[in-house]
Amino acid sequence: MAGMLVDERDQKFVLFEQLEIDKLSDYELYSEFDKDVYLMVLSEAKKLAENEFMPLNSVGDTEGVVFKDGKVIMPESFHRLWALWNEGEWRGLDIPAEYGGQGMPTVLGMAANEFFEAANLAFQMSVAMPRGGALLIAQHGSDEQRAKYVDKILTGEWSSTMALTEAEAGSDVGATRTIAERNEDGTYSIKGAKVFITCGDMDLAKNIIHLALARVKGAPAGTKGLSLFLVPKYKINSDGSPGEPNDIKVVSVEKKLGLKASPTCQLSFGEENNCTGELIGRENQGMTIFFTMMNESRLIAARHGAGIASSAYIHALEYSRERLQGSQIGKESNRQSPIIKHPDIRRMLTMMKSYTEGVRALIYYSSYCIDRVHVADSKEEKQKWEKRLGFLTPVTKAYGTELSFRVTEAALQVYGGYGYTKDYPIEQFLRDEKVHSIFEGTNGIQALDLAGRKLSRDSNDLYTGLLKDITEFCTEYKEHSGLKAYISILDEAKKALAEASVFLLELQKKDFELFALYANQYLELFGDVIVGWLLLWQAVIAWEKLSSIAGDSNPDNAQLENFVTDNVEAAFYSGKLGAAKFFISNVVSLASAKAAIIRIADRSALQIAENAFVV
Amino acid sequence: MAGMLVDERDQKFVLFEQLEIDKLSDYELYSEFDKDVYLMVLSEAKKLAENEFMPLNSVGDTEGVVFKDGKVIMPESFHRLWALWNEGEWRGLDIPAEYGGQGMPTVLGMAANEFFEAANLAFQMSVAMPRGGALLIAQHGSDEQRAKYVDKILTGEWSSTMALTEAEAGSDVGATRTIAERNEDGTYSIKGAKVFITCGDMDLAKNIIHLALARVKGAPAGTKGLSLFLVPKYKINSDGSPGEPNDIKVVSVEKKLGLKASPTCQLSFGEENNCTGELIGRENQGMTIFFTMMNESRLIAARHGAGIASSAYIHALEYSRERLQGSQIGKESNRQSPIIKHPDIRRMLTMMKSYTEGVRALIYYSSYCIDRVHVADSKEEKQKWEKRLGFLTPVTKAYGTELSFRVTEAALQVYGGYGYTKDYPIEQFLRDEKVHSIFEGTNGIQALDLAGRKLSRDSNDLYTGLLKDITEFCTEYKEHSGLKAYISILDEAKKALAEASVFLLELQKKDFELFALYANQYLELFGDVIVGWLLLWQAVIAWEKLSSIAGDSNPDNAQLENFVTDNVEAAFYSGKLGAAKFFISNVVSLASAKAAIIRIADRSALQIAENAFVV
Repeated sequence: MAGMLVDERDQKFVLFEQLEIDKLSDYELYSEFDKDVYLMVLSEAKKLAENEFMPLNSVGDTEGVVFKDGKVIMPESFHRLWALWNEGEWRGLDIPAEYGGQGMPTVLGMAANEFFEAANLAFQMSVAMPRGGALLIAQHGSDEQRAKYVDKILTGEWSSTMALTEAEAGSDVGATRTIAERNEDGTYSIKGAKVFITCGDMDLAKNIIHLALARVKGAPAGTKGLSLFLVPKYKINSDGSPGEPNDIKVVSVEKKLGLKASPTCQLSFGEENNCTGELIGRENQGMTIFFTMMNESRLIAARHGAGIASSAYIHALEYSRERLQGSQIGKESNRQSPIIKHPDIRRMLTMMKSYTEGVRALIYYSSYCIDRVHVADSKEEKQKWEKRLGFLTPVTKAYGTELSFRVTEAALQVYGGYGYTKDYPIEQFLRDEKVHSIFEGTNGIQALDLAGRKLSRDSNDLYTGLLKDITEFCTEYKEHSGLKAYISILDEAKKALAEASVFLLELQKKDFELFALYANQYLELFGDVIVGWLLLWQAVIAWEKLSSIAGDSNPDNAQLENFVTDNVEAAFYSGKLGAAKFFISNVVSLASAKAAIIRIADRSALQIAENAFVV
Repeated sequence: MAGMLVDERDQKFVLFEQLEIDKLSDYELYSEFDKDVYLMVLSEAKKLAENEFMPLNSVGDTEGVVFKDGKVIMPESFHRLWALWNEGEWRGLDIPAEYGGQGMPTVLGMAANEFFEAANLAFQMSVAMPRGGALLIAQHGSDEQRAKYVDKILTGEWSSTMALTEAEAGSDVGATRTIAERNEDGTYSIKGAKVFITCGDMDLAKNIIHLALARVKGAPAGTKGLSLFLVPKYKINSDGSPGEPNDIKVVSVEKKLGLKASPTCQLSFGEENNCTGELIGRENQGMTIFFTMMNESRLIAARHGAGIASSAYIHALEYSRERLQGSQIGKESNRQSPIIKHPDIRRMLTMMKSYTEGVRALIYYSSYCIDRVHVADSKEEKQKWEKRLGFLTPVTKAYGTELSFRVTEAALQVYGGYGYTKDYPIEQFLRDEKVHSIFEGTNGIQALDLAGRKLSRDSNDLYTGLLKDITEFCTEYKEHSGLKAYISILDEAKKALAEASVFLLELQKKDFELFALYANQYLELFGDVIVGWLLLWQAVIAWEKLSSIAGDSNPDNAQLENFVTDNVEAAFYSGKLGAAKFFISNVVSLASAKAAIIRIADRSALQIAENAFVV
């Protein structure tokens, strides 16, 4: 049995047997790495996460952050994690070497970080944000800015935030009111208020660099008039050291449902007209710059949710093996049986297994697309992976976090009444998990991104890309001796998704409101099909491996019971078959009916008069 | 606009326009009541809930209960609620007059209590439990016991608990280990430990009567050897006053995800061999007695969940009218628009509306079945309503609490980031709501009750009862000028449910484990169809009323926009049409595909080897 955080065998399966990421080493960019290096990284991440991060998860939840004298104090024990994280140079793992990172593939960064997020997401938020900040400055800053900030942030000496949201500008970023005024020395004076700033203040780092969106005086309204600024907590001396405090006030720290050890701050910039920032990139480029980070940060949000779900699943699994209740069906015994023997518990565990592994595959595959963009040797090749990533990103974020929440909820259900108590970690998981359907672009925004932006712009890339791959997969395996029934369900579902896509594209031209009403259902259908494909792809691989271990061309689970019990590898592969079959039978099988809902496009939700909801 | 708790117009619609509960007055049992009385009760409940209960909901959550010196101290402000509750004689509202109650219909009690639960569930738990206890003693106690306990509990001088669960006997009640030993004076000595006892101790009442399950020494194993005892916190003097403390120790009080102002206690009975109880009913009748309460207490659990969902929905609706973000589709304006204008928010609001109203209809209809049992004038008539109630109870509990949780979750999503903070009540709603899928028989247990007990015993009553009614409904309205498309979807869904029922009955004989694996899906399908029926039944009524108000035989929503805006009643009825159409199109339309999942009955979840979940 693996640890309590992540199914490591499954990680390796996706990385090396499904995506074969070791083949990325064939490209110059990743040529210095190999499978052994990747395995070592994963093993180190696991050790650190299990030994250090996990024990402090509930400590963080209980202590929370303290807001005192205008400053945020993190749980004392988090200082050790911060130091260990710095020491391990984890922030730079998948940041290009030219920027001071280790330059490993994004997909490996995703896998390694899964451990930390499964172990202690509240702490992990404090290091995930600066990693993105460092990358953004490295990619878009001037040479001077790179020299000034990137290394300090990557080493953890300083931290950074993403300061986008305002009280009146949440999903509606274009409504940003923070103002920047050009000073004679080239700096800008920043004035405005930001809300929901993760780690907007904290005492783990010596300085905090806020990446703040603001509108230069006289710039156009909406998103196209926004610029991005580096606004340090402490102004920076000419020798690069933190100097006098910038004019940034921590107004308050949110009291939240979960993630209590991750400070969510309201910040006020320039109340005394003395807040100075540096422009990054050019004026009015703010959103363009942020968009270059968008795919990755949305995948990371999905990973945050998936990490918790992974640990919740394993906890529930372990609990179901230990907890005795009722007697097993078909056994006469008066002895109580572990609840894992009960069909309804097995239903929940298999659902959790398939969702967890499906979301993992989805996140890794999407991240792998980023790496394929990086190594592409032609414009066409690069665009192919970019377009694919474009479709997958909103799906991974929204569908992934939705499934992860369902997993966490089911974990609580497996624990029964005990799950509702603070004696077990599940209720914290549920509280920490819930934010992910909102965070980093609500799931509703993701659906509009998928249907309203990606589909309407790149439908052809969908048909000739992802959907074509699925068609080819189904064609190749339609006579598969063990999986053909499932392949056929996936094939039907893919057709339904294609038809729904065509329908929505037409609808969008005729009735945008009605189109927007079904964006969410479309994203769900999209997720069902893609995850179904990824899991069935895994099943095909698992079938082959299992056949080869069993020396049997038709390794049916039922016949292999003893064999599977004795052979861990066989058990793993048979589990992969089970998870795929479950997901296809119970989820993907609904795709045609879900597509029909979209095609029928009932208007009731738009037609209800506003005063008719509750009179 | 109604208050923030319950859609009162919808309550009245279900009670008086759909179920026509005023017609219950035609029966002797309810002849002294009429619609005016019912309306007055609802109005008083609303006033008390809004003015007194609601303001203390977050106070209770923040203060929680205190466990000190072996005693549970409730939030100070709850004493006032307890006094007001006693004064209003709310406990006895729907308890028969012969037992000291006011004898109103159960369905009215459900409606009135909805306000209190929407306002402050944690407090409401402290009064809902004793109501059930009083009723149980009234129905099953001796004359002496009735005289001794019922009035004191109904008036709130004393409280009572249901002390069933033990650490090793949760869903598996038959594993109860608490022992009762007959004393010479006819009392019993009780010894054992109980967990998860709601209000197992508290300081609102002067005495607490525990209704505890225990096994008399020498009684058979399993549920059939369990007896029920009245075990008072303070032994009762011959004059009926509380005397010396009984030997009951409060071991601990659970720290929980939610319902922090409702003490969940671990109790130890007879540690010093001095815990005395009275048998109620006869020995080994404990479970039989509890089963007579089961239907009602499960409906009440559903109502608990529905109350929170109701308030969460109305809060989200109000928020969506006030919160400005983005501009409305199709409007050029740069002005931000209330989010209720955005299609995805409308999707969530309409979903919440249809779920909330559907669950309300389901709870009321099920409770109405109880009243029909009470007034039945023949054995056949009585049995007809009993059987119907038998099917509806597990569905109402499990499907109802599932939908209520979805509503609460969607409410949080409508609030966006703010929903995740303690500045708004939604995060508490989510925490308080979550217990209901576990409490009062987990939802998995309900599914087994539906498929394994009710369906297998009474399938004929299903076919000739509920399903026949739905068939007749569909036949009657299949040419309905405004709803025929929806009627047709319901008709298909009902056929799918009927087929799934026949299939499962066969499967049960051949393969009970596989049958049990699909019990949950069966319950979901059952819920989809029944709620679809109840909502479409409402739509037919609403259509008629709307036609009559509009003076138009085909009152299509779109044409009536201005009319609906000006006329509150028209708005209400048009909203009912919208909710029904939404539920049928988005939920009931999946029924055939869900039934197919059951019929295909994939075995993967049973086949996965235990060591194959995570290797």
